[in-house]
Amino acid sequence: MAPASRLQPETAERVAALSREAFGGRAEIVFHPQCFLSEGHFAGSDVARTAAVLDIANDETFSAVWFARGGYGSGRIAEQVLGNLAPAARDKTYLGYSDGGFLLAGLYRAGYRVAHGPIPHDIRRDGGEAAVWRTLAWLIDGDKTCLEPSLDGRPAVAFNLTILSNLIGTPLIPDLTDHVVMLEEVSEHLYAIDRMMVHVVSSPALRDVAGIRLGRVSDIPDNDPPFGRTPKEIVQHWCGVSGIPYLGDADIGHDADNKVVPFGAGW
Amino acid sequence: MAPASRLQPETAERVAALSREAFGGRAEIVFHPQCFLSEGHFAGSDVARTAAVLDIANDETFSAVWFARGGYGSGRIAEQVLGNLAPAARDKTYLGYSDGGFLLAGLYRAGYRVAHGPIPHDIRRDGGEAAVWRTLAWLIDGDKTCLEPSLDGRPAVAFNLTILSNLIGTPLIPDLTDHVVMLEEVSEHLYAIDRMMVHVVSSPALRDVAGIRLGRVSDIPDNDPPFGRTPKEIVQHWCGVSGIPYLGDADIGHDADNKVVPFGAGW
Repeated sequence: MAPASRLQPETAERVAALSREAFGGRAEIVFHPQCFLSEGHFAGSDVARTAAVLDIANDETFSAVWFARGGYGSGRIAEQVLGNLAPAARDKTYLGYSDGGFLLAGLYRAGYRVAHGPIPHDIRRDGGEAAVWRTLAWLIDGDKTCLEPSLDGRPAVAFNLTILSNLIGTPLIPDLTDHVVMLEEVSEHLYAIDRMMVHVVSSPALRDVAGIRLGRVSDIPDNDPPFGRTPKEIVQHWCGVSGIPYLGDADIGHDADNKVVPFGAGW
Repeated sequence: MAPASRLQPETAERVAALSREAFGGRAEIVFHPQCFLSEGHFAGSDVARTAAVLDIANDETFSAVWFARGGYGSGRIAEQVLGNLAPAARDKTYLGYSDGGFLLAGLYRAGYRVAHGPIPHDIRRDGGEAAVWRTLAWLIDGDKTCLEPSLDGRPAVAFNLTILSNLIGTPLIPDLTDHVVMLEEVSEHLYAIDRMMVHVVSSPALRDVAGIRLGRVSDIPDNDPPFGRTPKEIVQHWCGVSGIPYLGDADIGHDADNKVVPFGAGW
């Protein structure tokens, strides 16, 4: 299902074909018809998108809920989704990233199994088949080569920086104490990245994390005047000021190399 | 002083000339030399900008601290400023808007007299002399025609929506219980405005406000696909969903008509 923007039918067909070819009868991907709805910015109304998540989450015959695409819209439906999950919703994995982080955050906070990772729409990128294969190989075979390589047994989460900023102070944000927090960003100005890092490190919700890792920051619009610091320098600066350990790079981002980051520990 | 971006010297001269012409010897504006510093995106380093606020705030011979310009940077220095204010800082008014809201928020929370209103850099707008005159007439003569006209004795605040979103969950955000919250925005996509409204209404910090008013939302970049709702419809929608009263328009924005909104009540 698509909690935010719409998936194109031909994209779904490409993903289904890749799955058949790589995993044969060991996996069946069902694209909820809601994926292809269109209402303004969204893949259907809030009601339609909420119903579609619940259709799959509350059906015990499915083993995973895979968010079809990011964009914008998951935050609009997160409270309604979380308020209507049935017991069958516990026994599956929820996977997406970027805007999908609103749902991943709330689900993780509520004790569900969630992971950051490539989504069907990623097949449209250069090399996108490898990205989509990575999520499927991890979901179907538990293939550990698909995981973000710095994962070391400590609990972890991965978020788009804008989404994390928008989660702060809301009932969706999970307890991040002792977590490695991986961040990535796309299409934001450096001054906005700096501002959101101030927000993140100023929040008591982030002060007890194990540390921050930075993934790729891509498609940065020009800053006028030049900002004078790279994304990594920005993150290192604010980690330094706030006493949050900066732990290095994370192999995540809005690209075909994006890796899987299961939230929490004990996978 | 300039807590964020740099002021141009000729802008300062125009503001000083306007003040001499309109208010003669009844007012003296001193532009701190820091206003004209330049370091990357900012009017000097964080240390220089922090020192400049404190130079004026902690000097009993000044009756107001007027932020010269918005842009980006006030949030970077807010904690250092608030931690170093002397008793003389209590006996003056702090005025600015947009990015300056980081400082206004923290100062208001700490019990200082703060107001949203036009700033020196606004003189560069079409009709900007009237905007700058408005702040001066209010600061110097208490001219009530300069105030936002819906103010009705209830405590009020005014924020740029992006800044309010970035304040949520931080030690800077004041208690907004029973406040009329006026919002304005500039240069943000409609999907981002919608996302920030979800953030605002999802935050317990905003759930007990008296209501929300919406000022001007200007220079909105194109949304692809078209978002399908106006800024006012977005704000009304999220007020409706969350049970926060939508109170109507506010006469504020990034323009020459921007009015003065003293924070709190009892001015």
